[in-house]
Amino acid sequence: MSQPGAATERRLIEIIRRAARRAPAVRVGIGDDCAVLEPAAGSLLLATTDLLIEDVHFRRRWATPTDIGWKSLAVNVSDIAAMGGRPRWGLIALACPEAVTVEEAEAFYTGVQALATEHDVAIVGGDTSSSPRGWVVNVTLLGEAVRAPIVRSTARVGDVIAVTGSLGRSAAGLALLEANPAPAGVGGDARADVTSAHLRPRPRTREGLWLSEAGGVTSMIDLSDGLATDLGHLCEESGTGARVDLGRIPVEASVHAVARALDRDALTWATGGGEDYELLLTAAPDALDRLAGGLVRATGTKLTAVGRMMRAAEGIQYLDAEGHAVSVRPGFEHFVTGRARA
Amino acid sequence: MSQPGAATERRLIEIIRRAARRAPAVRVGIGDDCAVLEPAAGSLLLATTDLLIEDVHFRRRWATPTDIGWKSLAVNVSDIAAMGGRPRWGLIALACPEAVTVEEAEAFYTGVQALATEHDVAIVGGDTSSSPRGWVVNVTLLGEAVRAPIVRSTARVGDVIAVTGSLGRSAAGLALLEANPAPAGVGGDARADVTSAHLRPRPRTREGLWLSEAGGVTSMIDLSDGLATDLGHLCEESGTGARVDLGRIPVEASVHAVARALDRDALTWATGGGEDYELLLTAAPDALDRLAGGLVRATGTKLTAVGRMMRAAEGIQYLDAEGHAVSVRPGFEHFVTGRARA
Repeated sequence: MSQPGAATERRLIEIIRRAARRAPAVRVGIGDDCAVLEPAAGSLLLATTDLLIEDVHFRRRWATPTDIGWKSLAVNVSDIAAMGGRPRWGLIALACPEAVTVEEAEAFYTGVQALATEHDVAIVGGDTSSSPRGWVVNVTLLGEAVRAPIVRSTARVGDVIAVTGSLGRSAAGLALLEANPAPAGVGGDARADVTSAHLRPRPRTREGLWLSEAGGVTSMIDLSDGLATDLGHLCEESGTGARVDLGRIPVEASVHAVARALDRDALTWATGGGEDYELLLTAAPDALDRLAGGLVRATGTKLTAVGRMMRAAEGIQYLDAEGHAVSVRPGFEHFVTGRARA
Repeated sequence: MSQPGAATERRLIEIIRRAARRAPAVRVGIGDDCAVLEPAAGSLLLATTDLLIEDVHFRRRWATPTDIGWKSLAVNVSDIAAMGGRPRWGLIALACPEAVTVEEAEAFYTGVQALATEHDVAIVGGDTSSSPRGWVVNVTLLGEAVRAPIVRSTARVGDVIAVTGSLGRSAAGLALLEANPAPAGVGGDARADVTSAHLRPRPRTREGLWLSEAGGVTSMIDLSDGLATDLGHLCEESGTGARVDLGRIPVEASVHAVARALDRDALTWATGGGEDYELLLTAAPDALDRLAGGLVRATGTKLTAVGRMMRAAEGIQYLDAEGHAVSVRPGFEHFVTGRARA
């Protein structure tokens, strides 16, 4: 540990210690060289890590420290959810410029803790440092899977492709946050819906667990980089192609409203926007109704079929309402300094 | 993931995948939402994370990408060693400016892998990102402990305090790397000894495991922030004071040579310099000879008694050769931009 000054540093550690929940499976939490954890007998351990950097992954102009804390943990919880696992233990590293106040640092951990509490995660360790330039956050999250985790590489030709929730809200929210001046014609509800989707995403932990227990899901991935990119990963790892019916992709009215106000395309956000943290999965066609019905009853979250897995030779096709293949730009680019996302 | 451009990004992932060793207890390594690991039945899980930032923890002027990779993992291995655990699985996050070359990124992972191979660590996951300003590295390391991990809070009044190896080499190396112009009168061997201690520290994994198995160690911590600070942690967590005989602290001739050449104080480096990644431990006085003799036979590493644990009311005292209390400045400050370490 280093700057910010020793007093701030001690205070930060106090904040982290206070935020750390002593869960039953945590033998030693914050305050020693390592956390000491007691995995459940016979379970598999899941591990994921994400590095978030100011002006790459967030801007402090519109993301509060609490937003940053929430989202840093949320994106990792989403990775555990995508394997059908249970998130358990988080390690949080934060580097800030020396000018950071104790209040800002505390607000960051408040955001972490709020998300942690919702998903039953114990914060068991971390690191703090000064940063000469900008905020830097790294979160590592450990989880457990009692059943075999659902991986990306086991989709089969003929499987139906489905997504939880709806797509494009986060990209619409980012576009609105980056818009200067703010556009007219976006209602407060629509604005709140899409900006909260971007700033405080709600990972699908309960949905992932339910789907894992329900059986019949053949592969799963979380939508962090956008449908086009993440479906590409699923197909590449499974050795398949895919066909997506664009008209079936669930897009909220709020996203359409923001797209109209900014003269942008809602479907482009839904296919390429990224950061929706919904689950993309494949299943046998005859399992879909059971899964969709069960999921909405158990969690309130809808599951929508959007396409089929095809042979690899057919590539990945996107069809419009008339069944014509259209080009979809894959890939989610984080904005880079001085340039809004294209 | 984001910038550097998609081609570089794919290449980075390839490099990471190639570097990832498929160990027997790794069911899914890099390439899915999470790594899937199989902890040994009945073992406890250890977890630690460290964030390293350019111009706070290292300077690219004198640390090569391979040095940075090596040290990023080494500092975490040291934390596992300090609990008497076995390092197992690493997650490596790297953010670089867009100007980074594939060769530099590959050199970083070469350094990670070299240290990982020496300590039997499998790299099972990670993240990459662009950074608008400077390199950022985060390493999370998971380990296992079959026996109860050795913590900081269980030292007893009357225990002897001992350190592995010698102290001050890393601080001497840093002073030499930062010195401009380079001082005359430091031989090549001395220079190599202290700079390699700073750039490529060798964490005490085998020593920690041996000490844990030998029994009789009552508390342990690794010397990352310097003897004065880390002994302070040990005393605070254990509710004790301490007395250190400065004359007994092991300091290599190379450190004295560099101190003379730079007109600095070797003992200040040994007590306050930090980053030695030696082990600081306490034990019953009658166990020390057995531990020291056994450790040097098993690992070649010496163990030196430097003081005694005292009652908390006596505070932490440093005595010179005549038995007079002297003031020792605790605390390791990383250098900050534009200013060499004081």
